Amino acid sequence: MDLGAIHQTADRVGMIFREFAPDDRSAIDEMLRACGVFTDEEIRVALEIVDAWSPFEQDEDYAIFVLEGDGRVQGYVCFSKTPLTTSTWHLYWICVHPEYQGTGAGRALMHQVEAVIRSRGGERLALETSGQPRFDRTRRFYRSAGFREVGRIKDFYKTGDDCLTFCKELDER
Amino acid sequence: MDLGAIHQTADRVGMIFREFAPDDRSAIDEMLRACGVFTDEEIRVALEIVDAWSPFEQDEDYAIFVLEGDGRVQGYVCFSKTPLTTSTWHLYWICVHPEYQGTGAGRALMHQVEAVIRSRGGERLALETSGQPRFDRTRRFYRSAGFREVGRIKDFYKTGDDCLTFCKELDER
Repeated sequence: MDLGAIHQTADRVGMIFREFAPDDRSAIDEMLRACGVFTDEEIRVALEIVDAWSPFEQDEDYAIFVLEGDGRVQGYVCFSKTPLTTSTWHLYWICVHPEYQGTGAGRALMHQVEAVIRSRGGERLALETSGQPRFDRTRRFYRSAGFREVGRIKDFYKTGDDCLTFCKELDER
Repeated sequence: MDLGAIHQTADRVGMIFREFAPDDRSAIDEMLRACGVFTDEEIRVALEIVDAWSPFEQDEDYAIFVLEGDGRVQGYVCFSKTPLTTSTWHLYWICVHPEYQGTGAGRALMHQVEAVIRSRGGERLALETSGQPRFDRTRRFYRSAGFREVGRIKDFYKTGDDCLTFCKELDER
């Protein structure tokens, strides 16, 4: 795609939202571990997707973008268009390094993701997350960003760990 | 895996439930079209998975099985273990040729799928389907097979075409 449209500044002064580059891999690895909420298996799967990265050209490609500021990668996101839908997208991973949580980095990332998806005709963004207490803050973040819970599968990840589906209609500003 | 465990007879006399073989491809192609409920895009994606088939060895592989009787393939299913879960599986496709709908072929397929999943320690089976009228019969089939609606995303596939998530706990006989 036209990277000119993607190399845009983020909402916050001095922040850059840009497409992933292979040099970002170690920063993503480190932030996933530093977060303390992901299991080893989840980190392995997240990095597998990072390692399989190719430039975001087709909607169905995994799009990986990072938020950069203070000379370092503060957060990253991974999303793609959902196959067999006309205008639904899916957010697979969003992570902000704990040193930057609470600074608005997550909100800036989400805002930029929604802008990319809207620019490609996307109308809604869906995601799954865990119902466990370690993800309380994550779920609050999604709700405050305008996502609504639209589904729940009990014990999905493991006993006592439900899967919650959230969705946001992107015309709801 | 041990194919001896898979080459089992199905519930109905004279029916065989067995792993897919490349020669079944044309029968699957034909039944997907004959059903009249799938779009060209859905059929393309279903056949892409069939064409990428490899023997069911790892839980995370796409498992493709067929139900055979009267010397022909009457139905097929595609399912796999859901990544990042301990015991949740996902049903991607289930299709019975219209000439055999209403004969119990769908129920026999589902029963066998559940047996395979249980034999591998699976505890629940989730699936997504459309809320459109063309899938009324499909949704009735899932409900009668013990699935419950656990989520719904409005307009997911396209405007007016919701995604419904169903799930069945496999210890509920």
